[in-house]
Amino acid sequence: MNVNDVSFERERPDVYGDAHPKALLRAIQEDGDYLVQLANQHIVSGDQFDQATMKQLFRLAAKIESNPKRFHSPLQNKILISAFYEPSTRTRLSFESAWHRLGGDIMSITDRSTTGIAKGESLADVAEMFNNYGDCVVLRDTNESSLFEMMDALRIPIINAGNGTDEHPTQALADMYAIFKWRPALLDASNNEKIKIGVIGVPNKMRTVRSLLKSLSVFPHAVEELVIIHDEASAAELFGADQREELELRGIKIRITTDLNAVLPELDVVYINAISWEGDTFNTYGNSFSLSAKSPLKHDAIILHPLARGEELAMDLDNTPHNWYFSQARGAVFLRMALLTCMVERAERVIDVV
Amino acid sequence: MNVNDVSFERERPDVYGDAHPKALLRAIQEDGDYLVQLANQHIVSGDQFDQATMKQLFRLAAKIESNPKRFHSPLQNKILISAFYEPSTRTRLSFESAWHRLGGDIMSITDRSTTGIAKGESLADVAEMFNNYGDCVVLRDTNESSLFEMMDALRIPIINAGNGTDEHPTQALADMYAIFKWRPALLDASNNEKIKIGVIGVPNKMRTVRSLLKSLSVFPHAVEELVIIHDEASAAELFGADQREELELRGIKIRITTDLNAVLPELDVVYINAISWEGDTFNTYGNSFSLSAKSPLKHDAIILHPLARGEELAMDLDNTPHNWYFSQARGAVFLRMALLTCMVERAERVIDVV
Amino acid sequence: MNVNDVSFERERPDVYGDAHPKALLRAIQEDGDYLVQLANQHIVSGDQFDQATMKQLFRLAAKIESNPKRFHSPLQNKILISAFYEPSTRTRLSFESAWHRLGGDIMSITDRSTTGIAKGESLADVAEMFNNYGDCVVLRDTNESSLFEMMDALRIPIINAGNGTDEHPTQALADMYAIFKWRPALLDASNNEKIKIGVIGVPNKMRTVRSLLKSLSVFPHAVEELVIIHDEASAAELFGADQREELELRGIKIRITTDLNAVLPELDVVYINAISWEGDTFNTYGNSFSLSAKSPLKHDAIILHPLARGEELAMDLDNTPHNWYFSQARGAVFLRMALLTCMVERAERVIDVV
Repeated sequence: MNVNDVSFERERPDVYGDAHPKALLRAIQEDGDYLVQLANQHIVSGDQFDQATMKQLFRLAAKIESNPKRFHSPLQNKILISAFYEPSTRTRLSFESAWHRLGGDIMSITDRSTTGIAKGESLADVAEMFNNYGDCVVLRDTNESSLFEMMDALRIPIINAGNGTDEHPTQALADMYAIFKWRPALLDASNNEKIKIGVIGVPNKMRTVRSLLKSLSVFPHAVEELVIIHDEASAAELFGADQREELELRGIKIRITTDLNAVLPELDVVYINAISWEGDTFNTYGNSFSLSAKSPLKHDAIILHPLARGEELAMDLDNTPHNWYFSQARGAVFLRMALLTCMVERAERVIDVV
Repeated sequence: MNVNDVSFERERPDVYGDAHPKALLRAIQEDGDYLVQLANQHIVSGDQFDQATMKQLFRLAAKIESNPKRFHSPLQNKILISAFYEPSTRTRLSFESAWHRLGGDIMSITDRSTTGIAKGESLADVAEMFNNYGDCVVLRDTNESSLFEMMDALRIPIINAGNGTDEHPTQALADMYAIFKWRPALLDASNNEKIKIGVIGVPNKMRTVRSLLKSLSVFPHAVEELVIIHDEASAAELFGADQREELELRGIKIRITTDLNAVLPELDVVYINAISWEGDTFNTYGNSFSLSAKSPLKHDAIILHPLARGEELAMDLDNTPHNWYFSQARGAVFLRMALLTCMVERAERVIDVV
Repeated sequence: MNVNDVSFERERPDVYGDAHPKALLRAIQEDGDYLVQLANQHIVSGDQFDQATMKQLFRLAAKIESNPKRFHSPLQNKILISAFYEPSTRTRLSFESAWHRLGGDIMSITDRSTTGIAKGESLADVAEMFNNYGDCVVLRDTNESSLFEMMDALRIPIINAGNGTDEHPTQALADMYAIFKWRPALLDASNNEKIKIGVIGVPNKMRTVRSLLKSLSVFPHAVEELVIIHDEASAAELFGADQREELELRGIKIRITTDLNAVLPELDVVYINAISWEGDTFNTYGNSFSLSAKSPLKHDAIILHPLARGEELAMDLDNTPHNWYFSQARGAVFLRMALLTCMVERAERVIDVV
């Protein structure tokens, strides 16, 4: 075998440069108090933080992404309990990579069937065990309520990494981080910048979409219009109880449509997620929708996708400027590094101004 | 979502203060020689150590529990092979947490079906592999003899974390550590302090009970009476061959009864474990027995339970002073930290007097 | 239980002393340039390196084996993605042990069924995820092509730890390392030393054999003759297309035979591997062949075996001087430590002459 056949390039033209995170970093004034307060909060929902706290989180993520090698040991001697009772490789590795890059150790549970829970142990007892064994819990479970049953007994923080069809808040934070990295001017109402964002999917059935819309509603000044693109079949169950009303109450203007290509030319950001994972199985909502390099996208529009992708997102988009989904996935690691550092009482190790 | 809904308290009134471990620490004079000798021993049985060695182990555990942050790196660059051929989350995480808190790295095997053993590889060959790959092995297997087959080929220490229905010695050490933490005066015969301890279960069928009784028999001066509480169904198979005789030979006075509530008012310590795990299945012995806040317990009696619990231990006991089972579970991590440090030739890093 | 029953010896007479690695170390002049170049190469095939590069790798492995405690942190803050879609305990632990001994962290995937791949995610997308999450990938897959599909999208190095029945190059490097450790004079053509090596197995069906023969062919001066020992049933499919021709083109003289005991008295090195793992199942080729202490081996012949072993290799050989298979397994960890250090741009931390 020829050595040339096995050579590879570590660097190549892509959207991963440090220009964007550095611009975002410059756009936000550091205020460490917001980060220190995160040490006593579980992460449950896409809208649990106010605007100022989210901005500080995005700032810290951008700071880490601008210079990843600077922050290598704040979590030394800290242990993450990575409990994926609903199996997931992508989200699990994203959290575990973030934790390891901060110098921490990890204990993984990747199979619910062999745990005490399967044998009837209460989640409160499991939480009590976690209190003794680790410093932070990341939980994914097909059961929406497991998170809340554990929370009551925990004295260490827990992160909701997907609870049934309910929420997936750190995915939403990563989505928002990608949007602000792309266009930092959206952060401040005084800039008067706004985007039209289209979301392909069913807010009532997809936890990533539900959490994203909640996070988006914390920044209503940045959203000119939110367009939900869905198929006819899901029209009747598009929103959950009060879901639409709460978003509108916060100032989000919502339009719904079933015609993707008609609305595409208007959109600045397109969020696509045509598959909804529900435990071990999945459903396809809007499988009539797909994006490709031939779609009538605005020339400077960006596409976001929580991945893994199916046929709804053509690979011919990967090498176009519309591809921000890879940057979104990469940024999720830095966003989680920022969040985790603060949650386990190590914020002071990464703040410049104390 | 309101931030207050996701806030939590890291500290709260509980039995986890450092008063008890500090009292135990003061009650024992350090003698590091006993700990250094642990570097050439496998951990197999609840009675393999003499009284002096066990006291030094409990002292070191109490020293760590009194100040956990002091001991963070003695196992740096040491690798634990965590081999749970019989799946277990609780015991596995307890060992792995202990190892990580000491600064070591871990390789986990959580599924026997994919190993060479399943394909007919001999346990001696597996042990030879472990010699090359790690510094210590923790083994749980449904097969009682696996431990012994590996031991013969090992040049690194192995810990029995449960071999069939035979033994689970570190659980017993953790049980004893909880008892002495609760009442340090029991350690020395010269204090003339004694307890009545009741054990709900079947010594012949439960590895935790078998190991506990062995460990208990190393301190006969502390036991006024051991009461075995069992149901009629298990009367004929209550003890294994010579099991009762050996305990009595060492000076343990044994009574057996089937009437829990009649004996409860006499007991200082109640050990309950009404479920016996046997591989992937479990049997319930004495399911007529259960403890709750309404049980006629002595006012200062403590309850121990190896967990996970079923219906035999009511949650209304959790917030009573009888609850020492949570302290027992927590202490198990510190006990294992003490043991592991010594086993991999790092005792000198945690001893004050060398 | 008596303490003597649980005592063990950390040291005992064996082939693991440091005399052999030290002799190999002395036999090779350091030239770090070859090692630095490894930072931009995937590890795919047994013959991708030239002789000079392989010698430097063996030298570094011998340097580490001569003094393992000297090299404990070159991979600090580096993350290995250990992706064993085809389950394997032995090879996985060998790589993970090597990585941990260098101070790095690990994320393991031990089950393909729960990954996005099982749900239709492309391997290119998985590779893109790995780019963001880790610093190096070790991949084992039953599918020969998975490796190549990932390689194209990777910006971090990947190691082929077994791709179907194709190759297992680091096993071959470990095999060669064992041979040169045993007899360092074979390294240089000017010494005019040669061995006869017998390989029991089917080069067309066994990835370990295929890779070994390729690696062997990089050192044709050391091979007087290669004898392939096979059963009648596999005569028709013994070699793949061009496999034999390529080896002969490089100067390897090949003989084939079905009579093991007739050829054994001639052989200096016997490589036995009578079982071929193919995904979750295995096939036995040449099950009429086996080695034991009664086999007519040359008095100074050595036996190599990639392990795990079945009935083809009797345990009565373990305590004879023919047993170099344990040394081979042990050396594989050091060989992998050498390779991994170089692949993640840390070669300069272990080279004396820079």
